[in-house]
Amino acid sequence: MEEQSAILAAKNAVLMQSTALPDDIPHIKGYDFNQGVDHRALLQSFLTTGFQASSVGQAIQEINKMIEKRLEPVEEQEACDPSDSSPSHSGCTIFLGYTSNLISSGVRESIRYLAQHRMVDVIVTTAGGVEEDFIKCLAPTYLGEFSLSGKELRQKGINRIGNLLVPNDNYCKFEDWLMPILDKMVQEQKDEGTHWTPSKMIHRLGKEINNPESVYYWAYKNDIPVFSPALTDGSIGDMIYFHSHKNPGLILDIVEDIRRMDSKAVFAKRTGMIILGGGLVKHHIANANLMRNGADYAVFVNTGQEFDGSDSGARPDEAVSWGKIRMDAKPVKVYADASIIFPLLVAETFAFHADKLIPEKTQNFSN
Amino acid sequence: MEEQSAILAAKNAVLMQSTALPDDIPHIKGYDFNQGVDHRALLQSFLTTGFQASSVGQAIQEINKMIEKRLEPVEEQEACDPSDSSPSHSGCTIFLGYTSNLISSGVRESIRYLAQHRMVDVIVTTAGGVEEDFIKCLAPTYLGEFSLSGKELRQKGINRIGNLLVPNDNYCKFEDWLMPILDKMVQEQKDEGTHWTPSKMIHRLGKEINNPESVYYWAYKNDIPVFSPALTDGSIGDMIYFHSHKNPGLILDIVEDIRRMDSKAVFAKRTGMIILGGGLVKHHIANANLMRNGADYAVFVNTGQEFDGSDSGARPDEAVSWGKIRMDAKPVKVYADASIIFPLLVAETFAFHADKLIPEKTQNFSN
Amino acid sequence: MEEQSAILAAKNAVLMQSTALPDDIPHIKGYDFNQGVDHRALLQSFLTTGFQASSVGQAIQEINKMIEKRLEPVEEQEACDPSDSSPSHSGCTIFLGYTSNLISSGVRESIRYLAQHRMVDVIVTTAGGVEEDFIKCLAPTYLGEFSLSGKELRQKGINRIGNLLVPNDNYCKFEDWLMPILDKMVQEQKDEGTHWTPSKMIHRLGKEINNPESVYYWAYKNDIPVFSPALTDGSIGDMIYFHSHKNPGLILDIVEDIRRMDSKAVFAKRTGMIILGGGLVKHHIANANLMRNGADYAVFVNTGQEFDGSDSGARPDEAVSWGKIRMDAKPVKVYADASIIFPLLVAETFAFHADKLIPEKTQNFSN
Amino acid sequence: MEEQSAILAAKNAVLMQSTALPDDIPHIKGYDFNQGVDHRALLQSFLTTGFQASSVGQAIQEINKMIEKRLEPVEEQEACDPSDSSPSHSGCTIFLGYTSNLISSGVRESIRYLAQHRMVDVIVTTAGGVEEDFIKCLAPTYLGEFSLSGKELRQKGINRIGNLLVPNDNYCKFEDWLMPILDKMVQEQKDEGTHWTPSKMIHRLGKEINNPESVYYWAYKNDIPVFSPALTDGSIGDMIYFHSHKNPGLILDIVEDIRRMDSKAVFAKRTGMIILGGGLVKHHIANANLMRNGADYAVFVNTGQEFDGSDSGARPDEAVSWGKIRMDAKPVKVYADASIIFPLLVAETFAFHADKLIPEKTQNFSN
Repeated sequence: MEEQSAILAAKNAVLMQSTALPDDIPHIKGYDFNQGVDHRALLQSFLTTGFQASSVGQAIQEINKMIEKRLEPVEEQEACDPSDSSPSHSGCTIFLGYTSNLISSGVRESIRYLAQHRMVDVIVTTAGGVEEDFIKCLAPTYLGEFSLSGKELRQKGINRIGNLLVPNDNYCKFEDWLMPILDKMVQEQKDEGTHWTPSKMIHRLGKEINNPESVYYWAYKNDIPVFSPALTDGSIGDMIYFHSHKNPGLILDIVEDIRRMDSKAVFAKRTGMIILGGGLVKHHIANANLMRNGADYAVFVNTGQEFDGSDSGARPDEAVSWGKIRMDAKPVKVYADASIIFPLLVAETFAFHADKLIPEKTQNFSN
Repeated sequence: MEEQSAILAAKNAVLMQSTALPDDIPHIKGYDFNQGVDHRALLQSFLTTGFQASSVGQAIQEINKMIEKRLEPVEEQEACDPSDSSPSHSGCTIFLGYTSNLISSGVRESIRYLAQHRMVDVIVTTAGGVEEDFIKCLAPTYLGEFSLSGKELRQKGINRIGNLLVPNDNYCKFEDWLMPILDKMVQEQKDEGTHWTPSKMIHRLGKEINNPESVYYWAYKNDIPVFSPALTDGSIGDMIYFHSHKNPGLILDIVEDIRRMDSKAVFAKRTGMIILGGGLVKHHIANANLMRNGADYAVFVNTGQEFDGSDSGARPDEAVSWGKIRMDAKPVKVYADASIIFPLLVAETFAFHADKLIPEKTQNFSN
Repeated sequence: MEEQSAILAAKNAVLMQSTALPDDIPHIKGYDFNQGVDHRALLQSFLTTGFQASSVGQAIQEINKMIEKRLEPVEEQEACDPSDSSPSHSGCTIFLGYTSNLISSGVRESIRYLAQHRMVDVIVTTAGGVEEDFIKCLAPTYLGEFSLSGKELRQKGINRIGNLLVPNDNYCKFEDWLMPILDKMVQEQKDEGTHWTPSKMIHRLGKEINNPESVYYWAYKNDIPVFSPALTDGSIGDMIYFHSHKNPGLILDIVEDIRRMDSKAVFAKRTGMIILGGGLVKHHIANANLMRNGADYAVFVNTGQEFDGSDSGARPDEAVSWGKIRMDAKPVKVYADASIIFPLLVAETFAFHADKLIPEKTQNFSN
Repeated sequence: MEEQSAILAAKNAVLMQSTALPDDIPHIKGYDFNQGVDHRALLQSFLTTGFQASSVGQAIQEINKMIEKRLEPVEEQEACDPSDSSPSHSGCTIFLGYTSNLISSGVRESIRYLAQHRMVDVIVTTAGGVEEDFIKCLAPTYLGEFSLSGKELRQKGINRIGNLLVPNDNYCKFEDWLMPILDKMVQEQKDEGTHWTPSKMIHRLGKEINNPESVYYWAYKNDIPVFSPALTDGSIGDMIYFHSHKNPGLILDIVEDIRRMDSKAVFAKRTGMIILGGGLVKHHIANANLMRNGADYAVFVNTGQEFDGSDSGARPDEAVSWGKIRMDAKPVKVYADASIIFPLLVAETFAFHADKLIPEKTQNFSN
């Protein structure tokens, strides 16, 4: 190739002209601090900031759409779920899922707020996501560091969860609290034929804890079902194991719960999914929504990546291929730690619309 | 500060002298291809290559330690687990955990090899990790791309798992296969009082599939318990849901399984954990090993990160703080996709020692 | 092992007692939305929320320490850097580094605010981090999606940066603007013996753009040096390549710039590093701070991980081993996309202290 | 909605029928260890294993295409690059880029093999990627752990790079070696008017080290240009800083190097990019390939993610939008640590084809 023509070809490649973009595409523009610090305006500017800031902005919009639909009146004959004594008469049934670590963290307070004011309809979490809430009612969790030595911590009986510390004594207190309840559950199973399932056990524990700091106290009060099919996978399971050697016979059935969970999706008018983290909680909610040919709205917040083919890291578009999210939905994934993102989302959505979402009589309620 | 003294201080900082390192610290040295391509030598050079290559080298060593201990003779009175009819008379009980996507991928063949030759003692997986194995006996999974459009795929009834494609017809075939089995299970529960648990159901399905390509066929044949407490969280759950409307009453109890799972750890002489991926499978195995004050050996392969406080991404040292791994253990985490890593690990460990691990009479066995 | 003693050992492992933690360790507690949405209080609650929320809280504290020290009066004879005509008489010299994509995003407006009010002393960025700022003065960048087809975009001449879109025409406009300046630079080199370096070229371009929306206009106005040793690695390099065929001879020397850069660290009283992203910008600032035996304060915001041994993903503690951060410093790394984090950090630090940081006469300034 | 119709709708969603996939789509199938351990067959099975294993398989294919084209005879008048005294008469010009840490690791030996046998045509790396190669000729790098305390290491003068350890004495030895060379470079600049650029300096250092273990010794011997525009960003820069106070005047010009770099792409018949890691090395190679309207072949190996809009994490498809990769190319990204992947890739590509790639007379060469 001759030199001049090579340079010309290079210029043509580099300086290729572009087709005009549509007029309505947003310009990228961040917050201007010269106008002072207006946090709400700052968070609104995220939409045009790009990258994950834009995803946060889109997640706020998506959750606000769920809330808008939720507030639409539903006629009585719609959405009747025969398997549930407390049908959700809502224009949008909101499924909230989160992993255990978020209950260990201060995100718990945001979740409790949602349960307290019945802003969500179905909760899915892991065993740790259940028990850590109760344990926090018995003793505190502390701030530590990610780099603390596991060996030194074990010698002191201090358990580490990321940069959180939970003294092992907390689990001893949990044992003291739980064992008599397990006795009663076995007794009721024998005496009254109670058919225990994970969701029923969580409901019962929420009643027993009787503490307004607890997420599951409010789930109990507000009849929000909490599904956790692998409820034995944690401290609750440890206690059940020990308890079973003294007082065997307890049965926890997961079949009745899958019926109840799926029905929540099948009989909903519309559904929205808000899922923090991956693993079981993400799959369980999405799978239930397949039963209705897909959720209408979806927000995922997690740090997983798609490259390893895990469901945890899959983009929402993978769920579209399965029919777990509707083909015409605009699902949003925020790639970030939920400890930062979820409080910001709640601030701009549920809490922002609190006056519409909270029934008048309880509006001034505060624990 | 005067200029010259500032420069001198800079030099002192930059050219600080070092204390000698101990003589036995390995030098970093990679494979020299001038010696030709010797794959085994190449994989052995990983140990001194640094970064995750070294982690792969260390994981090979750690699994080989499990195998070495496993091959040690165990006296009969040791390790008697009264709750299990088939006690593992092994010097090291190996727990293998993996997420659903790995069964969807070709890692399934590596896992099946381990089950086929009873090289592992306890398996933990998710619902998808169970059903996808059976579904693959009914119809194939295909190679696709991560970027295929979810909407277009749904319109064609093709489900995407990362860069894999599973036609939805496969699930229809699964329904045809599973429904009569569910009928039988309900019948046996009524007639014989069978107390179904997830592990018993998987055992039964392994028998029913009767196909040597199946992981769970071999788990059934070799009496390897497979735990999956949230067995309803997937296609099996969908089928149970539909089935329950025609033929209700099936109970799947997770209490008996947690007893059995924990006992596997409690009554083991030593334990090793090999965990591919995060979520339930990682926590469940580690939690059981807490019941014995920690596993002796551990290899984690996953892409999770610790910064969000998730159990999935936690370094093994976090499990040490909980007593889930022994304080004097040398656990290894490989930060990489198991689809690359696990076949390499099996090649240099279980398959390398196949002649010692596989009883003579079955050594020439091949499906 | 006998069964009862095995169960007892399990109990002892699970219910091990713990040593008391010190009294002053913070309890984990998130924001309570029952008190209404108070964004500042919400962001303050991050410190005790755990995981990366706590890291954000710690990063706010760390930057506020830089600001506090910066505001301390410095005696004239201190910190005299003989190689610099505009010595920074500040109690804490703040180095700000960021990758190109952040200038493409709306984070640019936060960075421009800092340059405009001389809140930072030294800037390090990549070639793209320079040119995209100027290009945005010529034509806008748009919001798109991560999943848009590269082929279709190329056919339209639209370049994608994550979920941002930049029409290729913008680069044609950049060429029109830059070429005459390159002519002048070559002329001045010949006529006046100007010894061009990347930082001098950026200074000149900042003057030429003469636009208060530009980061580098303000860096020019406020004499903030901007280092970008690989300034040819981007569109500027493309233009220099084309220009050199018409008007050869331009020299860009990186030796004089490394002298200037290192001197900024060597002669500083204290230093703080705020580094968004990885690669060159992270290493360059940290390496300069080695020349003073380590920065006093450091905040890293990036999504890199340490497991692959990259400098980008290294924890700050790795920099401590090199003497790039002081041994007694409390450096903070936030694992998250800076597009979310940096505006929040600026809101709670520089912008919060604007009245102290901005000289009185310019306080009401706004572009 | 009535119950039965709701259940029916659920069934229709779950059991939707699928369109047939084309016949030629590969089935997912992993390696069967029952056939023994055949590493080459195992690596070939990666292509149908799914997830990143498939990406490794595709990367092997892509590099083998580069090699195939490279071996095609090129007519003399083609590909004449007037700015280069040693034109690459190759059917495919291969650009190899890698970050500093890979030279610190044992991947260096794989890279040296490629340079030694002139299997690649252009190298791009960072300052550390240059100097660590020379330093390793002076003293070894050691295997450590990611979790070693930065403070304790600094007190001992031991620098950490991920899980590698480099005694600071190594840098003192580097100073002893480099300072006289810098003297000579300044002298030659004065006496002979040598116009130094980073690539010329690296060429000279490769000559001076005169050690067959060095990558850059072989790059010097084989006239492979090595570009590193920010060559001052590392220990070389530290030494230049100190040296400049004793013997000022050295100029390192980056303009001549960008001309030379871009010409390598502009005048190539075809190009292939193999890029390990992100940051400057990734962008620099891709940007040069824009000048020829895109590379024909591309393999990226890194752990970066696209969600933060960084060039490091961008999928190859983003480069297609810019014209940096051809629209009809089939670029491959492997999401994994190159310390594992690159030796495997070399084994199945360059080393596998060594007999064709290495001229006969040097085939038995080994250092």
